[in-house]
Amino acid sequence: MQDLPQGKFITLEGGEGVGKSTNLRFITQWLDKQGIPYVQTREPGGTPMAEQLRQLLLEKRDEAVDPTAELLMVFAARAQHLNQVIKPALAAGKWVVCDRFTDATYAYQGGGRGLDWALIAQLEQMVQGDLRPHCVLLLDVAPEIGLQRAASTGEADRFESEQIDFFRKVRAAYRRRADNAPDRYRIIDASVPLEAVQESLASALQQIAGDS
Amino acid sequence: MQDLPQGKFITLEGGEGVGKSTNLRFITQWLDKQGIPYVQTREPGGTPMAEQLRQLLLEKRDEAVDPTAELLMVFAARAQHLNQVIKPALAAGKWVVCDRFTDATYAYQGGGRGLDWALIAQLEQMVQGDLRPHCVLLLDVAPEIGLQRAASTGEADRFESEQIDFFRKVRAAYRRRADNAPDRYRIIDASVPLEAVQESLASALQQIAGDS
Repeated sequence: MQDLPQGKFITLEGGEGVGKSTNLRFITQWLDKQGIPYVQTREPGGTPMAEQLRQLLLEKRDEAVDPTAELLMVFAARAQHLNQVIKPALAAGKWVVCDRFTDATYAYQGGGRGLDWALIAQLEQMVQGDLRPHCVLLLDVAPEIGLQRAASTGEADRFESEQIDFFRKVRAAYRRRADNAPDRYRIIDASVPLEAVQESLASALQQIAGDS
Repeated sequence: MQDLPQGKFITLEGGEGVGKSTNLRFITQWLDKQGIPYVQTREPGGTPMAEQLRQLLLEKRDEAVDPTAELLMVFAARAQHLNQVIKPALAAGKWVVCDRFTDATYAYQGGGRGLDWALIAQLEQMVQGDLRPHCVLLLDVAPEIGLQRAASTGEADRFESEQIDFFRKVRAAYRRRADNAPDRYRIIDASVPLEAVQESLASALQQIAGDS
């Protein structure tokens, strides 16, 4: 009996209106074509309980939400998702393609809400141990453009209702994350035509698939 | 203008069927008689969002709940409750009487689920800083007796459905907490007649009220 090679853990990140849904479809179609087995999932969410936590997080409410409470809910959902879905899939040799993960926490709760990155790092260690994505695909676009695109897709949730300054901080935090560990990140300019975005994605995926 | 004296923060703790509801009523009646202003609340819960988290925690589910996810949900609810309810009440000079608090986390998630107390202490520090109850009133009874009493009060939730060994560990953890800091705890034997329990409670409250 041979040990299966561990699958690759790919996350797709970016602010509002960067085109995550369209590009996620492109990624999974690419994996299908290559015959690579994968699980597609998202955060916060990915299990019934974690999806309930997602709902509590996104719901607009009269009550002011304490930023630390928000942060702990995000990591609670993540702990559940990792143990129920992500780790078992990777151990079974599957790729995991996740719509947002811990970089979004650094960007939204860190950058956007102003929480200390050291606090986030402490929870990351507690919940993930050494587990990190093999590659973070960061779709990057100016929030002015992103919000305009996002505006046409239904009612805004508690995060989408933030002001533009919030999304500027989110974008800056994402880029800082990428700059700190360029080996694990691919910044993909999402302001160019879709065809060009997807060429960049395909090239990134090709490289990840080739890594041992 | 004079600074208000900070209110006292009292928690009532104990396993299943120790008589918390009855004794909470006794405590608030005692405070009413003394003319001491107070807020009565509970954990997990105490704000609309924290009560939603309580519901997610107590709900029986097919999905196995990761113990760290459970722990983070408890502290998320606590962060919200502290900032929205407990700290403002104490700052306004009111007493806070809380049905369960962080000792329950050490007892249930630590003792019951087997999570490391150091992990709990890390989150306690993150969420509470230096804030601790002035006094923990621990109602103590053998789980054999407590569960028998609790059995008559409706359908069991996800915690109440645990086996007796779980509740033995919960009790042992509560007692270990009390033994580690005897100044802040009152262990109250809840196996004796209610009148005697309430004499002990009244004496504890008298002492807390007298503390500067």
